[in-house]
Amino acid sequence: MAQEDNAVLVGNKPAMSYVLAVVTQFNEKGNKEVVIKARGKAISRAVDVAEIVRNRFIPDVKVKDISIATDTLKSENGQEVNVSSITIVLAKE
Amino acid sequence: MAQEDNAVLVGNKPAMSYVLAVVTQFNEKGNKEVVIKARGKAISRAVDVAEIVRNRFIPDVKVKDISIATDTLKSENGQEVNVSSITIVLAKE
Repeated sequence: MAQEDNAVLVGNKPAMSYVLAVVTQFNEKGNKEVVIKARGKAISRAVDVAEIVRNRFIPDVKVKDISIATDTLKSENGQEVNVSSITIVLAKE
Repeated sequence: MAQEDNAVLVGNKPAMSYVLAVVTQFNEKGNKEVVIKARGKAISRAVDVAEIVRNRFIPDVKVKDISIATDTLKSENGQEVNVSSITIVLAKE
């Protein structure tokens, strides 16, 4: 999951931090698309972020695409761990 | 979220319980499509379930559609609470 210029990687902070990041990408940076990404337990929060942006901040933003995948990470002791990920593409009309 | 015949509602049990339910829908009941639904924190688990079914159990199952929404629930004290939900449609080719 490379961090592109218009991507917001959702982690363990409160959802509102990421909502603000997405709204900034749309409104201040003028992006037409913003990509929200998350792994593991943060996936639920990524969905919250997309829904809050759409419903409360920028009503003309639509969900353009959602995809899920499995990323294989290497843990500190060298073991491979599979973790689910989600990519949500929001687009302004 | 009405519980249809081919729907699996993911909650707080371990992911494998729901994986088994999905695999049963495909293999024993002969469904061509299974709908995985979840709300709130269970959304991450729903993605895990879809990925585990695809990667470890039924390789010819594809993700046909993913949608997200906001459901408004009424809490016990009568307050309305918004909660995100996800619907993942898996289809056998």
